[in-house]
Amino acid sequence: MKTPGIRPSRDVGTLLEALPYIREFHGRTIVVKYGGAAMTDPALREEFARDVVLLKYVGLNVIVVHGGGPDITKYMRRLDMEVEFVDGLRVSDADTVEIAKMVLIGKVNKDIVLRINRYGQAAVGLSGDDGNLFRAAKQLATGGQDIGFVGRIEKVDVDVLNHIAQDYIPVVASIAADADGASYNVNADEAATAVARAMGAYKVMFLTDVEGWMRDPADPTSVISEAHADEVEAALPSISGGMRPKLQACIDAIHGGVTFAHIVDGRVPHSLLLELFTDAGIGTKIRAAR
Amino acid sequence: MKTPGIRPSRDVGTLLEALPYIREFHGRTIVVKYGGAAMTDPALREEFARDVVLLKYVGLNVIVVHGGGPDITKYMRRLDMEVEFVDGLRVSDADTVEIAKMVLIGKVNKDIVLRINRYGQAAVGLSGDDGNLFRAAKQLATGGQDIGFVGRIEKVDVDVLNHIAQDYIPVVASIAADADGASYNVNADEAATAVARAMGAYKVMFLTDVEGWMRDPADPTSVISEAHADEVEAALPSISGGMRPKLQACIDAIHGGVTFAHIVDGRVPHSLLLELFTDAGIGTKIRAAR
Amino acid sequence: MKTPGIRPSRDVGTLLEALPYIREFHGRTIVVKYGGAAMTDPALREEFARDVVLLKYVGLNVIVVHGGGPDITKYMRRLDMEVEFVDGLRVSDADTVEIAKMVLIGKVNKDIVLRINRYGQAAVGLSGDDGNLFRAAKQLATGGQDIGFVGRIEKVDVDVLNHIAQDYIPVVASIAADADGASYNVNADEAATAVARAMGAYKVMFLTDVEGWMRDPADPTSVISEAHADEVEAALPSISGGMRPKLQACIDAIHGGVTFAHIVDGRVPHSLLLELFTDAGIGTKIRAAR
Amino acid sequence: MKTPGIRPSRDVGTLLEALPYIREFHGRTIVVKYGGAAMTDPALREEFARDVVLLKYVGLNVIVVHGGGPDITKYMRRLDMEVEFVDGLRVSDADTVEIAKMVLIGKVNKDIVLRINRYGQAAVGLSGDDGNLFRAAKQLATGGQDIGFVGRIEKVDVDVLNHIAQDYIPVVASIAADADGASYNVNADEAATAVARAMGAYKVMFLTDVEGWMRDPADPTSVISEAHADEVEAALPSISGGMRPKLQACIDAIHGGVTFAHIVDGRVPHSLLLELFTDAGIGTKIRAAR
Amino acid sequence: MKTPGIRPSRDVGTLLEALPYIREFHGRTIVVKYGGAAMTDPALREEFARDVVLLKYVGLNVIVVHGGGPDITKYMRRLDMEVEFVDGLRVSDADTVEIAKMVLIGKVNKDIVLRINRYGQAAVGLSGDDGNLFRAAKQLATGGQDIGFVGRIEKVDVDVLNHIAQDYIPVVASIAADADGASYNVNADEAATAVARAMGAYKVMFLTDVEGWMRDPADPTSVISEAHADEVEAALPSISGGMRPKLQACIDAIHGGVTFAHIVDGRVPHSLLLELFTDAGIGTKIRAAR
Amino acid sequence: MKTPGIRPSRDVGTLLEALPYIREFHGRTIVVKYGGAAMTDPALREEFARDVVLLKYVGLNVIVVHGGGPDITKYMRRLDMEVEFVDGLRVSDADTVEIAKMVLIGKVNKDIVLRINRYGQAAVGLSGDDGNLFRAAKQLATGGQDIGFVGRIEKVDVDVLNHIAQDYIPVVASIAADADGASYNVNADEAATAVARAMGAYKVMFLTDVEGWMRDPADPTSVISEAHADEVEAALPSISGGMRPKLQACIDAIHGGVTFAHIVDGRVPHSLLLELFTDAGIGTKIRAAR
Repeated sequence: MKTPGIRPSRDVGTLLEALPYIREFHGRTIVVKYGGAAMTDPALREEFARDVVLLKYVGLNVIVVHGGGPDITKYMRRLDMEVEFVDGLRVSDADTVEIAKMVLIGKVNKDIVLRINRYGQAAVGLSGDDGNLFRAAKQLATGGQDIGFVGRIEKVDVDVLNHIAQDYIPVVASIAADADGASYNVNADEAATAVARAMGAYKVMFLTDVEGWMRDPADPTSVISEAHADEVEAALPSISGGMRPKLQACIDAIHGGVTFAHIVDGRVPHSLLLELFTDAGIGTKIRAAR
Repeated sequence: MKTPGIRPSRDVGTLLEALPYIREFHGRTIVVKYGGAAMTDPALREEFARDVVLLKYVGLNVIVVHGGGPDITKYMRRLDMEVEFVDGLRVSDADTVEIAKMVLIGKVNKDIVLRINRYGQAAVGLSGDDGNLFRAAKQLATGGQDIGFVGRIEKVDVDVLNHIAQDYIPVVASIAADADGASYNVNADEAATAVARAMGAYKVMFLTDVEGWMRDPADPTSVISEAHADEVEAALPSISGGMRPKLQACIDAIHGGVTFAHIVDGRVPHSLLLELFTDAGIGTKIRAAR
Repeated sequence: MKTPGIRPSRDVGTLLEALPYIREFHGRTIVVKYGGAAMTDPALREEFARDVVLLKYVGLNVIVVHGGGPDITKYMRRLDMEVEFVDGLRVSDADTVEIAKMVLIGKVNKDIVLRINRYGQAAVGLSGDDGNLFRAAKQLATGGQDIGFVGRIEKVDVDVLNHIAQDYIPVVASIAADADGASYNVNADEAATAVARAMGAYKVMFLTDVEGWMRDPADPTSVISEAHADEVEAALPSISGGMRPKLQACIDAIHGGVTFAHIVDGRVPHSLLLELFTDAGIGTKIRAAR
Repeated sequence: MKTPGIRPSRDVGTLLEALPYIREFHGRTIVVKYGGAAMTDPALREEFARDVVLLKYVGLNVIVVHGGGPDITKYMRRLDMEVEFVDGLRVSDADTVEIAKMVLIGKVNKDIVLRINRYGQAAVGLSGDDGNLFRAAKQLATGGQDIGFVGRIEKVDVDVLNHIAQDYIPVVASIAADADGASYNVNADEAATAVARAMGAYKVMFLTDVEGWMRDPADPTSVISEAHADEVEAALPSISGGMRPKLQACIDAIHGGVTFAHIVDGRVPHSLLLELFTDAGIGTKIRAAR
Repeated sequence: MKTPGIRPSRDVGTLLEALPYIREFHGRTIVVKYGGAAMTDPALREEFARDVVLLKYVGLNVIVVHGGGPDITKYMRRLDMEVEFVDGLRVSDADTVEIAKMVLIGKVNKDIVLRINRYGQAAVGLSGDDGNLFRAAKQLATGGQDIGFVGRIEKVDVDVLNHIAQDYIPVVASIAADADGASYNVNADEAATAVARAMGAYKVMFLTDVEGWMRDPADPTSVISEAHADEVEAALPSISGGMRPKLQACIDAIHGGVTFAHIVDGRVPHSLLLELFTDAGIGTKIRAAR
Repeated sequence: MKTPGIRPSRDVGTLLEALPYIREFHGRTIVVKYGGAAMTDPALREEFARDVVLLKYVGLNVIVVHGGGPDITKYMRRLDMEVEFVDGLRVSDADTVEIAKMVLIGKVNKDIVLRINRYGQAAVGLSGDDGNLFRAAKQLATGGQDIGFVGRIEKVDVDVLNHIAQDYIPVVASIAADADGASYNVNADEAATAVARAMGAYKVMFLTDVEGWMRDPADPTSVISEAHADEVEAALPSISGGMRPKLQACIDAIHGGVTFAHIVDGRVPHSLLLELFTDAGIGTKIRAAR
């Protein structure tokens, strides 16, 4: 017999608050771009894995897409390779891409897979090569500068994702090859957008290290909770820094048929669940133009 | 744009606490005997419907079994019929059974079905007649007294339940006919037990108007959280009142292969969710003998 | 060894005559509006149950829809309630609807289900509430008079019917709730028509207590065996009495895509089989305009 | 409008009488050995085709097995070939078997297939070669006499039958090849028995040109309606003529797991339907020993 | 232990050369018109059976269509029947058609089926009667001369082919009946074309006893390896002899949606495999007009 | 029109020789341990990818398992890490395993996947982490020496393999984690054996850089073509060098239910096809003890 003791919780508040959202999202595809503090902070990455498993269990078709720039840089430094960026894109010779593939697919991806597995729902890691998931084409920097094996995603073959998402949580590393089999670095935000569009996702959620889209970037209380795509597009020219490509990715997703795009603060524990399953939400939610 | 306002919750505590339970119960059958305050109190019955829908959405195969004695008595009184009980069983001539069928199937069952429907997951009401779900045999009162059309469930054909539970929440009224087509009143606790056994349920949960099984019935703090079936059987001879048949039903369920039988206080809002999805639980949980 | 004795039949005439019809109707949906003498006469209702089972066995998808006005009136009288009709519609306060639900779903429906079960093919009873089968809206009497909870069917969700009709004979009581969960009396002819249209039925058959549509209502030999919908529409203004709404229901069914609508004399034993499976037929068969 | 006229039938007697049998046989396999007058008489063979289609429509899995000795003999005579029998088995050199195959598969089988097709349910003809349905081994006449390519069925591969029986009526010619691909004449009663055993059939029915098994072969009123296999075995040594191998085939079928074996008078129109669907039956029905 | 001995082959050349073709043809339907030396020469017909089995094993949906004129003539002569041709069409009274059916279905077809079976992949023989595969209409000779039961194929019902092709190799004899059940001789090239069109085949291949379509019929080295349908049509008026109807059949197939039509020299061992799986090919391949 | 030119091959010898083997292996699982020259030589690795695609196309369920020791060593040297082996096992601290995972999964595995993709059949790369494919346990060197994160495979969960093998060629890297999520180097021969056993494979084939098992290791003509497991076990104590663990892996596979284990010379172009599809074979084939 269990002896009476400390009762951890005697209410089911957030569970009940979540019901209408669980109902709304049931069976739908949610693509999560994973990165930033949620991927580097040891406590946050455990919480992330747990949250993702919960999403799967309550009936969402969750797909994780990730990059891993800092780890690539770290390994390049260990190998005395030169690290250079143009327009925020990593200048990539063949050796750089080989290092990037090894780090993203062999290390970062498997770390995520193992953590998700541990919370009771098996994940399967994929790169753009597996099942011909992605086909890339070379991308030039602004002004047409050749920065090597940096690519855009030209084509997504969702068969392998649909196949695996039946029973597993797919975890996708943002690496892709072109038609000749040459590999390219691909921006992970772009990869998440491409996956969300190709899957006809209900939501794409970008985990970032800011509170969301802020009217005044210096004032975290100025976060805009909801916006329409046309408002974002109108505002885009006046936005600078890392928020601009994130908002661009949101707009690309919406234009590609994704219903909602979210910018979520990955530094907040359980930010995914808070944004998805509470009335208050967290971060910025963008929907199609009125 | 959503104007900043009151944020109803900024934590997802019970949702996270629920994850291991959602995982454990996923795809399993949970039979809920519904009755008492949870069925008569207007606020509690709304909460019950909402909870049941949540259970379905997070992947449990939930089946509701109900009686409805007070409503039967009320209608009998309106019709100037005599209401008589022997051993807690309603003495039932043919007219009484007809009233009982009409009240349970035509009124109580449909009220439950409509309430569940409103929370976004369709329910389908069933009686023991539908799809030959139950076959009854006449039951005598203690000492062999004939009290009319009062029956035990001899046979459960789960085909119709399995059929409907694929897409709907089955709601079962405790009415059954014998092989000749004569209808009988059946005790709803027994009906829930019979359904749970036949379905190979993981849990059967009896909603009651007490805190659970108490060491001292006068002291609500003496609730026994967990017990083994052999402990319950050993204690049974010394237990009197309404708790005795409930505990007997629990033991019958366990002996019939049900993994856990619960006695839950239906007066507590969301008692189902608290018992299923929180570490503390609520009420008494009985498992097989050690 | 069987001793030679009386040989009940040495021909298989109607079986052979039925073959082309069995072939024609194989796999098709036939909605039967059940009522009148076929539902009240003890011998006829046994024959009806047997016939319905035969239809299912020879491969038709048979759906029974029923009302039960006389039983409702009988119970209202037992309860000293006032029984009032306007335009043939029962004036229905909330208490009246509650009685109607109890009688139709809890008594009449289960009687039909049990009788069909006994002939070897299980039936499942449904009301408009089960699986959100029907959604009703309030209907006013002629001149806009409010006669309470009397409704029209606005929407039919056939999922639950298709689900159950795979393995069972669905038996539908003509009760429906509106979007807020308030219940309404619904005319059973209308309910049968609504089901037939939503199911894309091949036939809807109305069992009545007359020979069919008669040129001269006083002359039973003047039954019109077959008619086109436009002939019926042209004749409608000059028709009075109970035949008029029946013929209107037939026309509504045809306009909604049902191939044939039949008015069949339910007082004739096995009228369903005679109309469906013999060359002569019985009653009136209406098809689309030329 | 249909003018009132002669109404061919106003009762559905045999249809109703058939219901319990339709229910009993639903989904079960019935193997019919086709031959004799039912195959040669122009009127009877039309009725046979119609009956077989009816059996399929009311849900039986009907398989026809046939020989065709008289047609073989006719063609052999046209070709001036010598026709010789030993123990009722046709002495068969390679040329004889070639003629037999051509006649049975190319003529008799296709005649049956075309007639069944015409009644609205497509048939597919098979020989023992198709899909490796049969494998034969050489059979010697009494006393070990070699009579050429006359064979017993050693093995039945039911895959092709099950495949085709899903949507078509299989019609099987009693020709089989051995492991080396040499073809053999096979007795059609034996082929029917082999198919019935391999399919786990519910019934095998032998159409013959006698009333059934008669206590006194000279007295048609002495037909034994039902018998147990042990009674037949006990009687066998005293039975002579063509009835003996028929009864032996019945016993072999019963011993191989077939529930009932029938000897039916094929000269009676619709004998199949009369035996299957009327209480009186026709012919002799044999079941397992008590 | 295997003793070292003669090693039959130490290269896998044609296997590798075949890969791109296997890939191209995987899952596609290939209809082979079988006839000529490949059907009469004992060695060639063994090779043919082996090749067809190989096609099935490497994933092609192969369907064999055959005639058998020489065998029909042989039997007609044995029966002292007059053999007469008009425009290359056999003048066919009812008796002639009966002989043709027996020979094609009962002898030729089963010989092919047995040979294919022996190479490890079961075949099922079909005529146009089985499963209503073909429906024929009477065809007149040039000038409207009535030459009896000689027919064109009016309709192909591919259900039975698709059914059988799942697990077996269908082998189709070119016999067909009209709507009244009267049987007709049908040209096997036409039958192959009709099957290929109805199946939406990727290829139809005509096995003939010439090298292919030759620029100069007297010069076997003038074979045209590939041609477009419009080239063939342009050349047709100037072509005489047996090649003309073959080329016409090719054009009919292409116009009916078949991607490629081949004329292949059946006298060359393994001509099917050489044409399908080697870069060189053999014979003439015709594709749609540019 | 194709101009007559060089015809690359006019025979289909090996294709025909392959037929009985294609038939035998159809639908069966073949696990290939890939390594050695076949993985490092640029020409051989192209041929390998092409061969594997051919195997898939002709209906084999082919699974590739690989290691990649030389690449790991190369990267460790680039990073100035110490490379040390005990008993042929790489001494592995956490950093070494991280490098090994990155090289095997992120580089070697994706190179194989991309090459297979290019030949027209998509592959999907897997590590032991994906879908919980492998669970490892720490392995000690001889004498119980702790050599770090070197593991044995304790458990194989074939669900993810079966899932992916339906539509793709699985390519498995020999990396595995223990129950706590710590990663281990696993010997690739062992991984191939574990996969073959868990899949109930028909064959496991080890590609090596020797001719096979030689009676006299110095004499390549002494290769033993076929052996029974008991012969191998008897010979094992007297065998030294790299052949010993290979033969041990073969025996483990056979004892685990794999039907055949092969040691194949990967330096020979198309060695897989030669061993599988030619009568001569190549290398050593081991089967269960007599």
